[in-house]
Amino acid sequence: MAGEAGKARTVLLATEKALSMPVTEFREAFAAGAVNKIEDVCKAAKYTLKRLENYKSKDELLAAVADVDAMIIRSDIVDQAVLDKASKMKIVVRAGAGYDNIDLKACEAKSITAMNTPGQNANAVAELVFGMMIVSARNNFDGTSGFELVNREIAFYGFGAVARAVHKLAQGFGMKSFAYDPYIPADQIQAAGATPVSSVAELFDHQYVSLHVPLTNETKDSINKALLGKMPKGGTLINTARTEVVHEADMIEVLKTRPDFCYLCDVAPKDIEPYKAAVGDKYGTRLIFTKKKMGAQTAEANDNAGVAAANQIVGFFEKGETRFSLKA
Amino acid sequence: MAGEAGKARTVLLATEKALSMPVTEFREAFAAGAVNKIEDVCKAAKYTLKRLENYKSKDELLAAVADVDAMIIRSDIVDQAVLDKASKMKIVVRAGAGYDNIDLKACEAKSITAMNTPGQNANAVAELVFGMMIVSARNNFDGTSGFELVNREIAFYGFGAVARAVHKLAQGFGMKSFAYDPYIPADQIQAAGATPVSSVAELFDHQYVSLHVPLTNETKDSINKALLGKMPKGGTLINTARTEVVHEADMIEVLKTRPDFCYLCDVAPKDIEPYKAAVGDKYGTRLIFTKKKMGAQTAEANDNAGVAAANQIVGFFEKGETRFSLKA
Repeated sequence: MAGEAGKARTVLLATEKALSMPVTEFREAFAAGAVNKIEDVCKAAKYTLKRLENYKSKDELLAAVADVDAMIIRSDIVDQAVLDKASKMKIVVRAGAGYDNIDLKACEAKSITAMNTPGQNANAVAELVFGMMIVSARNNFDGTSGFELVNREIAFYGFGAVARAVHKLAQGFGMKSFAYDPYIPADQIQAAGATPVSSVAELFDHQYVSLHVPLTNETKDSINKALLGKMPKGGTLINTARTEVVHEADMIEVLKTRPDFCYLCDVAPKDIEPYKAAVGDKYGTRLIFTKKKMGAQTAEANDNAGVAAANQIVGFFEKGETRFSLKA
Repeated sequence: MAGEAGKARTVLLATEKALSMPVTEFREAFAAGAVNKIEDVCKAAKYTLKRLENYKSKDELLAAVADVDAMIIRSDIVDQAVLDKASKMKIVVRAGAGYDNIDLKACEAKSITAMNTPGQNANAVAELVFGMMIVSARNNFDGTSGFELVNREIAFYGFGAVARAVHKLAQGFGMKSFAYDPYIPADQIQAAGATPVSSVAELFDHQYVSLHVPLTNETKDSINKALLGKMPKGGTLINTARTEVVHEADMIEVLKTRPDFCYLCDVAPKDIEPYKAAVGDKYGTRLIFTKKKMGAQTAEANDNAGVAAANQIVGFFEKGETRFSLKA
């Protein structure tokens, strides 16, 4: 049971060698270093780690779950059949952000807690942001003169884990950071080394604005012409959040009418053609879209997620922690 | 005269609106901010700054040089005709690294000192290096899973201004730096926060090696198969120095035989086709060549060079400093 501390437990680390997963998911097994770290977390709690890596048939998984108390999965499918065999299992943790591969209703029916591991990909996204910023500033390496990031200003809409990781790299580049987050007090932003501003609109007084807000009724289409039009020379919107946060028609209009304006996205809209048409031959410099959402897709982010999963399992059993529980 | 301090001087800031310059040169005038800084340097020395920006005919330059003690130029041609009119001029400084536009022999014959402003482009090169590294690590934004730079190792062959600027950014990314420079003692490397190694060969034990050495008889073709073959998994050579430092046939062979090996260059060889053939569809990820040498080509680098030029002129007159004098 959760919170029942000090008992011996067995944790299954299952990573299927499957090619049937959505292509946006990272399908490799954990790196050896990550498995060692997961093993260390388990050992420290006196748990046994049972490894089922690169298994090829579902039967192997069905056999392996029978005697385990917990399971760490990657893209592995956890459905009714798996849960029926896992008679001792109390918790399954998806090492990663997405969790479409877990049947949450079936988990709930069996009182099995399901979790994901959000926030392990912050640095992965942050490095991608700087890659896009430099490619844009240096004209996609075409040999012409560009500009440097040093001393320039970046403003964060939302100041959670990803924004803070971008901010940390920005400090390394000698940039100045600004932030607004409706849920984070100004003094916390200040303490992190960024300058708090008091409204969304004020963010758009700075050359770079990076979006780190969820998609809600309030944020949907909220980044519009009124805000984008305020941006100073070389104004650049960075979107590693959700495409729907940006007002599409307004963005296309701003790209068309302001030849200095740039849009860098790890979140391509469904139809990128109107965007490309707006910038002409500047696709790849003024306008960058990754081919698929990939900010979180690194070996490190996935390894971090594995270690976080192990820690969450130990926290669940030893301290009753359920912070990252998923609702059906 | 040089070293004759405290006299009133006039410095001409000349930037021709010319399109006849080599395309690798930055042709825009100095930014307003840079001109203000140049003006501040002159004012502090009680010099007068005479501005001749965006002039369109050589006659304007010939008229302007007649009464000046010094001149700051960008890509402007300083030939016999200009020098003949500049009867008071003691020094001409090219704000930038290249100085093909100055007739050094004619300067020497008239005892006019000519200088360039090396080292003002270190951060410009460093940012480009990180742009290329991230594009390579993240598969040119193709949507597939890549890796992060954090915690990885970079080793510098040569530890001058550019290497130190790359090292500074590497620290921001949480990387570990190593360096070897035959002319810089280990304790100075240590003091800068990098780990000194005792030979060129040892540099190649690290995933990234960045070249910052001049082309000499000793360095020519010195980066060969023996060194490149030592590099660990994901071994990546970064070359913002000179293409001839790398043994061409060896590099092409290593690119062919090691599918994990990467080569990132701001210094494309004359014929890039054999390189491209060696990596197939990985051109743009495993192999990146900028279209023209552009590491130093940023607005900031050029502005920095303008301020450095003004400082060098003041140092020349007030203290007899001739550190960056060019030889005919």
